Amino acid sequence: MPEITAVAREIFAAQPFTALLGAELTGIGEDWAEISITMQKALQQQHGYAHGGVISYLADNALTFAGGMSLGGDALTSEFKINYVAPAKGEKLVARANALSVGRRQAVCQCLVYSSTGEEESLVAVAQGTITAVTPLAQG
Amino acid sequence: MPEITAVAREIFAAQPFTALLGAELTGIGEDWAEISITMQKALQQQHGYAHGGVISYLADNALTFAGGMSLGGDALTSEFKINYVAPAKGEKLVARANALSVGRRQAVCQCLVYSSTGEEESLVAVAQGTITAVTPLAQG
Amino acid sequence: MPEITAVAREIFAAQPFTALLGAELTGIGEDWAEISITMQKALQQQHGYAHGGVISYLADNALTFAGGMSLGGDALTSEFKINYVAPAKGEKLVARANALSVGRRQAVCQCLVYSSTGEEESLVAVAQGTITAVTPLAQG
Amino acid sequence: MPEITAVAREIFAAQPFTALLGAELTGIGEDWAEISITMQKALQQQHGYAHGGVISYLADNALTFAGGMSLGGDALTSEFKINYVAPAKGEKLVARANALSVGRRQAVCQCLVYSSTGEEESLVAVAQGTITAVTPLAQG
Repeated sequence: MPEITAVAREIFAAQPFTALLGAELTGIGEDWAEISITMQKALQQQHGYAHGGVISYLADNALTFAGGMSLGGDALTSEFKINYVAPAKGEKLVARANALSVGRRQAVCQCLVYSSTGEEESLVAVAQGTITAVTPLAQG
Repeated sequence: MPEITAVAREIFAAQPFTALLGAELTGIGEDWAEISITMQKALQQQHGYAHGGVISYLADNALTFAGGMSLGGDALTSEFKINYVAPAKGEKLVARANALSVGRRQAVCQCLVYSSTGEEESLVAVAQGTITAVTPLAQG
Repeated sequence: MPEITAVAREIFAAQPFTALLGAELTGIGEDWAEISITMQKALQQQHGYAHGGVISYLADNALTFAGGMSLGGDALTSEFKINYVAPAKGEKLVARANALSVGRRQAVCQCLVYSSTGEEESLVAVAQGTITAVTPLAQG
Repeated sequence: MPEITAVAREIFAAQPFTALLGAELTGIGEDWAEISITMQKALQQQHGYAHGGVISYLADNALTFAGGMSLGGDALTSEFKINYVAPAKGEKLVARANALSVGRRQAVCQCLVYSSTGEEESLVAVAQGTITAVTPLAQG
């Protein structure tokens, strides 16, 4: 676990797009991951809310890391589905994903994305997807 | 049509996240839209390909604009599903979406995302989703 | 609650396709529903497992009833996504759905489908979808 | 092609659930498949339309056979997403699926489901999913 956690943190830190968005890997465990973003003007759509693309990035990436942790190595999202359930108005976005089913090469994961005002969290999106192992940890 | 096209272009130009990614609305019509991005380091994942979040942004936004055009006004993506079918290695990404079914308030749209080297295009993702009208054009 | 539960049971009993498959509404509550099927030869695919269409029927219908309960009346599934995670070999299939987010006219629900041998349950599919209200209970 | 077409027809004929629903494999080719059902009371939901579970069976199975044809052997649907766009009132349902992208072990396919009155077809559902090869034809 400590080793794979370190690998996951390295992969996360090596993503230029993640740096562009200012996302942080705020939690990680055996079969789950949490990624957070502090909202800023550059991440908004035309009505001042978080752009759907920011929320789908969060869901996609949290799914990938939850799946990768459960599969034990580098992984990628093969496909996912997202339902946007409310506009994201808060100062922060938090995506929490976990594996629902783990096979030898693929995991099916779920992700809930919350908008947070600091005091309160509200659900803004729900996602589900398939994560596929790229390289086992030993070869990472 | 000319009026709604102008409204769509205004909405697109008013999205800060779209500006951050350098995306362009390269085509738009009665029930379709095309959005393109010139690749740059900042949009990559850890292996040097376009990050899935960039591709899902493209699919999400192209679906929104195709649906908005078909519904005749401002619209948002309620949900969508995306399958990543190949890594995006090209210098450019192009997303083409069109409406498959148009109701009074919702349209179901499809989007194909291509990676382009300038000479050749290859399919990198396929998406399908529901677009919901926000405000009719008259109130836009 | 008692009234809407009775309405839900009536709707379920009025579905000819549900009768053809021998499905039963084995549980129902404020924002959830459970539907079960006893396996039989006629519900199998070519390898002797439950056909995917039986599992997707279960997920679809459990999502509809969970969403309908949370929305307070007759409802339909507008769209859903399902991941099959293991072949269904058991004597019984059980689908449990619950609402993750409830709006005025739509609910986003999740469903887990299990295969049961009587003693043990194993996950065979995971689904997520949008349920839309058809008629409020008062008009039902 | 003739050999794989024959294998596909055998697999289809070996599905008890397909027989229960009275579905027919009305067309098949290199990377596509068409499955049809003549409507009957037993396939309806509570309002007299085709039950969503019948439509999702059709989409699921047409996706499987289109993907199997493109992959060259027995295959299964790993996951799919379906949008119901209109109630199915016709005497016949026709699902047409084709592969959009074919890899070594997986194909991403799309399916359109139509309701037909004999004279006219109208779109009732759109689906997209991942088909995974089970056994190559040589081992079939």
